[in-house]
Amino acid sequence: MNKSTLLKQLIQSPKPEFLMEAHNGLSAKIVEETGFKGIWASGLSISASLGVRDNNEASWSQVLDVLEFMSDATTIPILLDGDTGYGNFNNARRLVKKLEQRNIGGVCIEDKVFPKTNSFIGTGPQPLADIDEFCGKIKAMKDSQTNDDFIVIARVESFIAGLGLEETLRRSEAYRQAGVDAVLIHSKRTDAEEIASFMKEWGGRLPVVIVPTKYYSTPTIRFHEMGISTIIWANHNMRASVEAMQRISRQIFQDESLLAVEGSIAHLDEVFRLQQVEELQEAEARYLPSVNRIRGDCP
Amino acid sequence: MNKSTLLKQLIQSPKPEFLMEAHNGLSAKIVEETGFKGIWASGLSISASLGVRDNNEASWSQVLDVLEFMSDATTIPILLDGDTGYGNFNNARRLVKKLEQRNIGGVCIEDKVFPKTNSFIGTGPQPLADIDEFCGKIKAMKDSQTNDDFIVIARVESFIAGLGLEETLRRSEAYRQAGVDAVLIHSKRTDAEEIASFMKEWGGRLPVVIVPTKYYSTPTIRFHEMGISTIIWANHNMRASVEAMQRISRQIFQDESLLAVEGSIAHLDEVFRLQQVEELQEAEARYLPSVNRIRGDCP
Amino acid sequence: MNKSTLLKQLIQSPKPEFLMEAHNGLSAKIVEETGFKGIWASGLSISASLGVRDNNEASWSQVLDVLEFMSDATTIPILLDGDTGYGNFNNARRLVKKLEQRNIGGVCIEDKVFPKTNSFIGTGPQPLADIDEFCGKIKAMKDSQTNDDFIVIARVESFIAGLGLEETLRRSEAYRQAGVDAVLIHSKRTDAEEIASFMKEWGGRLPVVIVPTKYYSTPTIRFHEMGISTIIWANHNMRASVEAMQRISRQIFQDESLLAVEGSIAHLDEVFRLQQVEELQEAEARYLPSVNRIRGDCP
Amino acid sequence: MNKSTLLKQLIQSPKPEFLMEAHNGLSAKIVEETGFKGIWASGLSISASLGVRDNNEASWSQVLDVLEFMSDATTIPILLDGDTGYGNFNNARRLVKKLEQRNIGGVCIEDKVFPKTNSFIGTGPQPLADIDEFCGKIKAMKDSQTNDDFIVIARVESFIAGLGLEETLRRSEAYRQAGVDAVLIHSKRTDAEEIASFMKEWGGRLPVVIVPTKYYSTPTIRFHEMGISTIIWANHNMRASVEAMQRISRQIFQDESLLAVEGSIAHLDEVFRLQQVEELQEAEARYLPSVNRIRGDCP
Repeated sequence: MNKSTLLKQLIQSPKPEFLMEAHNGLSAKIVEETGFKGIWASGLSISASLGVRDNNEASWSQVLDVLEFMSDATTIPILLDGDTGYGNFNNARRLVKKLEQRNIGGVCIEDKVFPKTNSFIGTGPQPLADIDEFCGKIKAMKDSQTNDDFIVIARVESFIAGLGLEETLRRSEAYRQAGVDAVLIHSKRTDAEEIASFMKEWGGRLPVVIVPTKYYSTPTIRFHEMGISTIIWANHNMRASVEAMQRISRQIFQDESLLAVEGSIAHLDEVFRLQQVEELQEAEARYLPSVNRIRGDCP
Repeated sequence: MNKSTLLKQLIQSPKPEFLMEAHNGLSAKIVEETGFKGIWASGLSISASLGVRDNNEASWSQVLDVLEFMSDATTIPILLDGDTGYGNFNNARRLVKKLEQRNIGGVCIEDKVFPKTNSFIGTGPQPLADIDEFCGKIKAMKDSQTNDDFIVIARVESFIAGLGLEETLRRSEAYRQAGVDAVLIHSKRTDAEEIASFMKEWGGRLPVVIVPTKYYSTPTIRFHEMGISTIIWANHNMRASVEAMQRISRQIFQDESLLAVEGSIAHLDEVFRLQQVEELQEAEARYLPSVNRIRGDCP
Repeated sequence: MNKSTLLKQLIQSPKPEFLMEAHNGLSAKIVEETGFKGIWASGLSISASLGVRDNNEASWSQVLDVLEFMSDATTIPILLDGDTGYGNFNNARRLVKKLEQRNIGGVCIEDKVFPKTNSFIGTGPQPLADIDEFCGKIKAMKDSQTNDDFIVIARVESFIAGLGLEETLRRSEAYRQAGVDAVLIHSKRTDAEEIASFMKEWGGRLPVVIVPTKYYSTPTIRFHEMGISTIIWANHNMRASVEAMQRISRQIFQDESLLAVEGSIAHLDEVFRLQQVEELQEAEARYLPSVNRIRGDCP
Repeated sequence: MNKSTLLKQLIQSPKPEFLMEAHNGLSAKIVEETGFKGIWASGLSISASLGVRDNNEASWSQVLDVLEFMSDATTIPILLDGDTGYGNFNNARRLVKKLEQRNIGGVCIEDKVFPKTNSFIGTGPQPLADIDEFCGKIKAMKDSQTNDDFIVIARVESFIAGLGLEETLRRSEAYRQAGVDAVLIHSKRTDAEEIASFMKEWGGRLPVVIVPTKYYSTPTIRFHEMGISTIIWANHNMRASVEAMQRISRQIFQDESLLAVEGSIAHLDEVFRLQQVEELQEAEARYLPSVNRIRGDCP
């Protein structure tokens, strides 16, 4: 089954589902092995791991290169955090084509302006996209997909921009009519009140996705009760690796030795297993004549 | 000061120096912040993080893209683990040109054949490069560098291939005469006996670099006594991140909640700090007229 | 119909078919518009147009980037001139996966060693691949394709290497048994004698492809009579553009004026037509609210 | 001498100078061999040759990949047609860094909005950038260059947008005060009246660059008399190659033979010369042991 179909099933599933963040082939593989059914290719995590800011400093094609490695390393679907679609409707519909080629399940775009700023940065409100323009972008994306199941999700940023419930409902309804498969309602409150208020009024017109990074202490059962479709754990693998690398680097730097860290990090054989070294050894036995395996220094 | 000069000083320093592994812009930044003076851009770690094998599955230009992000994110020099130079002498000298453009301090090439296999994989010996061919490759690389201080290091794999001390000395001397700036003597024993035997006979003809991944329990003071120039902690940030991501992913998967992990991973603000969010905010104040910062919905 | 199926039909067609060289999106589009049913993505032309040599100076992923633009710009199938497969069997089977993702119809690999040299360069014979190793590579490629119709062609270089008919038959038969869909018999003679001698003995065991760059004066009817399946016009668009650019650049340089060249080069509107400007204008009318089309200077 | 310094000398030269368009390594090489002192890396030509539209369909990093090949293949400076800088001031200053790494002499940005449309397309006026925002972008670019001689040119689009002389002077002066090294005054009239009117009022405050694609029939001596600094022949190599490839493709398609075209296109040896095949053969003699040159089939 293609990955868009798998993602569609997840988004439309009657019970809540979870997407776990990954930012490169390695983390994507780990997400799949852990048991998750889908991957969130986080714009923040991808930019942070590349070493740049979450402000479209990496080009869309550089993000695409990361996605290709992620998709090749896994069999579960990936939902791309596609920022604003990297430009206007024409850039966004080109993106759909490129994602389909790489078997990415779908993309989520947010109603801000290019280049974007991470939603949790800054104190003042960030500019939102013009609703008509954003709806045109959505229509262009949906019209250009060749895989019927390719998923386009609209991330509504009006709560973050301080524009309240009414504007959030107005935008969500407009995006629904423009053809999105789900809406992602974003909030930076430390409780789920905005989300709850939205769910009450929305009435299940489309599946709703949330990202509880800031309101992480809300019990997941609450989201179930509200009727949330999909919950995204949005950046936690990247943040786990930051903590681990800072800690291990510091230890090695201070000790000038590996002794204290060897037992607390993944064994080299575990890395080789994740890389599927065994499959290659079997393939070498099948495809590579023995003479070539001991070559070198041949006269 | 350019990064090749910094790397040269490190390699030629009278006291032992350390290079810490990184595999993307984020880990490179962490290595620098920790206090290390140089970065080892590990072929194993880069391939593993991309989600492919350490067998030249990523193209040399894909590796270069990773390096560019790493170099842009840091001010300390990077030594690239350049496998076999990704082909023959012509590919290797092109690599030098490309690395210089991206301000990479130097490159280490190993005397095996393309495509390479990780030195710690497999039971039988891996084929080594023909000595004359490898010396031609070294000469071509040294002749093509335009920065006098660009570093080329030869990684000698004869101990790993089971060919003993004499062959290791023979190869090291040949590579020295071909013009390398240092030799990296590799060993997969769990003690440092091979290294020690080499150091006794080598007599300081050139700086010697080691990678004690397998003989990590040897006290660093022993390496100092032997006269080792530079010690590479070769893959530990990547392995730290694997352990951390597997652990945090499992916890979130089981809990269906972020509650238990929030306190044990890097805070979002720490990620923003690593990305230098503050510099951009200052730049926006300097370069972006206020009207553009609150745009959106303009008629 | 997918492009591999189209290419398969071409290769297996009872009457002779033609592939025309292209080296970027623009030339590929021109080949399609001219009426050709398939495109030869020439390694020589792609490397020359990039400004590098036909010795794997461009990485396989850089070639892939070129191919993606070519495939996106056209609807007819592309056969990639895949050199030696860019490494061993593992690199070659990864290539198949990458080509399938980009909807490339098939690939032709030659039995030489990486990095390759253009077959028409040099006086002495170039080294050929070990037959067993090359057969292993073919098997790995055929086993890894997920599209049943994806085409793998073996280019036999033994005539070029001066090894004669018997070796050419021996290699062709070995590659046939390893699973290729066709053989490309290469010759640098200025007549078609080698090709003719091969066709007499081959007896139609598999379709045969030829590249009459050097024996261009042989009438095409002769190839038909021999039973050739497919004829590749291998580098003539690139060579046409070299002649034209040298001539027009010289004229403008000497005249310090455009006057003399304006009438002899493509009109700007023809370039816009090739780029499908009209489709975008229609799409803007459909997807872009008018307010955005006259934006700028909005307060 | 670095290429920015060469470009600066060209721009500031008391006598008129010429830049000739190129769009890949091959055309860039031809421009240099013809005798031109500088290259115009045209956004239209690069996009057209890739097979996409001149609307930022190619990402900035894909354009950068093209530029890298062009710069590596030549020794004369390249001025990039950098559209609007590919986003806001932050994207534009990152671009400067990336261009400096690849030894590109300078960049010209135009005062339109991202994603841009080619200036010669469409009937209605295209939106222009807000002046203050564009000045902030210029300042950010000039502040971020590390090479003192790196060139930033502002392309003023107000004539094209129908806003007349006064607005063109106002914008040019604002951009001058923001720090650009020259202004490019663009016009789509078929005579040079707009340019002449500007030159009369401008009074040599900064060098002026023009692109007489549409007013090609104006004698170059007129531009000299007006005091124009630099004239760009903006897309003629690409248009020459389109005409040539369409003609040669058609001929081969109709003839099903190469006979008629062989004499009218560049000889294969000329292509090899442009690729510097000879340098590699000399290098092989120097760096590659003879044994490797006849390898293949070694047991």
